[in-house]
Amino acid sequence: MVNLAKVVDFIHELYGTKDFVPLSVPKFVGNEKKYLEDCIDTTFVSSVGKFVDRFEEKMAEYAGAKKAVVCVSGTNALHISLMLCGVERNDEVLTQALTFVATCNALSYIGAYPVFIDVDKSTMGLSPDSMKEWLRKNSVIRNGECYNKNTGRRVKACVPMHTFGHPVRIDELVQVCAEYHLELVEDAAESIGSKYKGQHAGTFGKVGAISFNGNKTITTGGGGMILFQDEELGKLAKHITTQAKVPHRWEFVHDQIGYNYRMPNINAAIGCAQLECLDEFIKSKRKIAKEYADFFKKVDGIDFFEEPEGCFSNYWLNVVILKDKSAQLEFLEYTNDNGVMTRPIWELMTRLPMFKNCENDGLRNTIWFADRVVNIPSSVRL
Amino acid sequence: MVNLAKVVDFIHELYGTKDFVPLSVPKFVGNEKKYLEDCIDTTFVSSVGKFVDRFEEKMAEYAGAKKAVVCVSGTNALHISLMLCGVERNDEVLTQALTFVATCNALSYIGAYPVFIDVDKSTMGLSPDSMKEWLRKNSVIRNGECYNKNTGRRVKACVPMHTFGHPVRIDELVQVCAEYHLELVEDAAESIGSKYKGQHAGTFGKVGAISFNGNKTITTGGGGMILFQDEELGKLAKHITTQAKVPHRWEFVHDQIGYNYRMPNINAAIGCAQLECLDEFIKSKRKIAKEYADFFKKVDGIDFFEEPEGCFSNYWLNVVILKDKSAQLEFLEYTNDNGVMTRPIWELMTRLPMFKNCENDGLRNTIWFADRVVNIPSSVRL
Repeated sequence: MVNLAKVVDFIHELYGTKDFVPLSVPKFVGNEKKYLEDCIDTTFVSSVGKFVDRFEEKMAEYAGAKKAVVCVSGTNALHISLMLCGVERNDEVLTQALTFVATCNALSYIGAYPVFIDVDKSTMGLSPDSMKEWLRKNSVIRNGECYNKNTGRRVKACVPMHTFGHPVRIDELVQVCAEYHLELVEDAAESIGSKYKGQHAGTFGKVGAISFNGNKTITTGGGGMILFQDEELGKLAKHITTQAKVPHRWEFVHDQIGYNYRMPNINAAIGCAQLECLDEFIKSKRKIAKEYADFFKKVDGIDFFEEPEGCFSNYWLNVVILKDKSAQLEFLEYTNDNGVMTRPIWELMTRLPMFKNCENDGLRNTIWFADRVVNIPSSVRL
Repeated sequence: MVNLAKVVDFIHELYGTKDFVPLSVPKFVGNEKKYLEDCIDTTFVSSVGKFVDRFEEKMAEYAGAKKAVVCVSGTNALHISLMLCGVERNDEVLTQALTFVATCNALSYIGAYPVFIDVDKSTMGLSPDSMKEWLRKNSVIRNGECYNKNTGRRVKACVPMHTFGHPVRIDELVQVCAEYHLELVEDAAESIGSKYKGQHAGTFGKVGAISFNGNKTITTGGGGMILFQDEELGKLAKHITTQAKVPHRWEFVHDQIGYNYRMPNINAAIGCAQLECLDEFIKSKRKIAKEYADFFKKVDGIDFFEEPEGCFSNYWLNVVILKDKSAQLEFLEYTNDNGVMTRPIWELMTRLPMFKNCENDGLRNTIWFADRVVNIPSSVRL
């Protein structure tokens, strides 16, 4: 029997409070107010403005991407990413059941179907081995395209998710995608600042999508960013996310179905201020993770999940692994009843009504994690 | 030959400047900075926060709606509105070719098709007479649903747009919709504060969508609002626009395909401040319109478009009617070359590549307006 009181005490001490400890709240210690005032004073609050441009440039530079395009949310960034990779209605896309629902919603907006592949024990993210195994058994290549032998549908892309900021084995996924003619779209919603072998998450696939929701490592209130290695594709994303308007001095001509997915300048202003603090935030988050790791080494029955080998994780949300489902529930109840906010991993996609009939590969590790993972407080501490 | 120099001088004088006069820029003279600071200080910048709730309540109260739900843009507000009215893939929707592209884009996201009906000379908005005429000739009612005899597709809804803030003959449209079993979705993007026979635009149909883009009468940077007369439908909208998450202390369960269309608290904060100033803004806009009306009465060859009878218009963008296409072009060139921003009406939807094959009724008045309308500076002047 784990001493949960000890855990709760440790977390209160870690955050230097006896009050309620939230899971992940934003920190504003930089130029946020100054930049917001600038927006109001210049009246540039909307879709055009210097902070939009600056945020895109700084983010591309930070991540080492050729181009970055702001979006109104991570979900919508992913939606556009999938469209730009040629995912169409009735296509199938390989992804995780262990993810936030946004990954699969974005697919649904296009009319595509997820196929759920198991995750690795070491990363909590899409397993290259499981993916290869599923493709070997279930797919066939025709005219340079991959098809699901069971459904007859085209398998167009693969969307791994860097779960809680921990990078997946992305270089191996790149190889499997190349072998099976799949586009690689990285759901990097949670992994700003995370690196795999020194390279920023979201820059391995054709496109990567980042989220700046309020609970993320840095926030813009709500928002997202698409990362591109192909500058032309990035320009097309900008066009499509800004209603596909053709530039003209006064005419209002639009050359394709466009989206109003522009991040307003006022949100980009916060983004610029937050990005200036990102490295400091990640340093703080990694220090917290280290303290958790040291603490849980001394606690029987609870393992702290550490970054995969060769990876630099932002430790967006810290993870403990309980010994089974009943221990997980006990942990959730005790901590939430005693002033420490915790939560289980998202309900598996295969258990939600809208995705329960989608194909999956058995999901052995996925189910193992679902029964054991709990997220514990992870806010930046300065 | 119109004396365009006189027009340009008048507009410079109207706005008390010899510098460039923009078309429509926001005005921040209220609590914007104070409310933004409050967001930063409390760290409530994201999708949950008091300004989101307050903005929805105040907006419902202002418009006389049972419920109002914030959205990330007017386009997305319209998208959700159409979904909630049961518009499905391959349905047809009656609307205007004389509109901003967002109206038709929102339809396209669902996979529905616009059918373009002519507008009234008196309103620039969807004509009840033309609509009735088209339905009489082209539709058939089967099992309480309306079908297009030519295409065999179901005609599910009608989306009138209150062009530039001038209300359409909405009570007659309500009747035609009832007769033909069509849902009425009001595109009230441009018409906050506008009234038809004393009732706020956007509250006549099942749902109405408002926009708070940067160029609108009031702004949130980017954003929109859906107005409901049916509170339960409003609650469903809130659920769908917030990722369809089922409330629970810690579980992450979602019961349908949801959207991340939440307006962040930081944007709603600006919205609250702006809404406090709305009546004053509209008073200013109507005064400007009156001055334009008086001025253009003395100018040969240019008519100023005044609010339809029985209507109270916000005069979002002021409109002049030139005598033909060449006069329109001459006006656009002269004004834009001489420090006064003007623009023609949007390119007709029937002339855009993605909608050019959609059915239309001939669009006599629509084309007449397209060749003659120019928008002239309309910013609030305090």
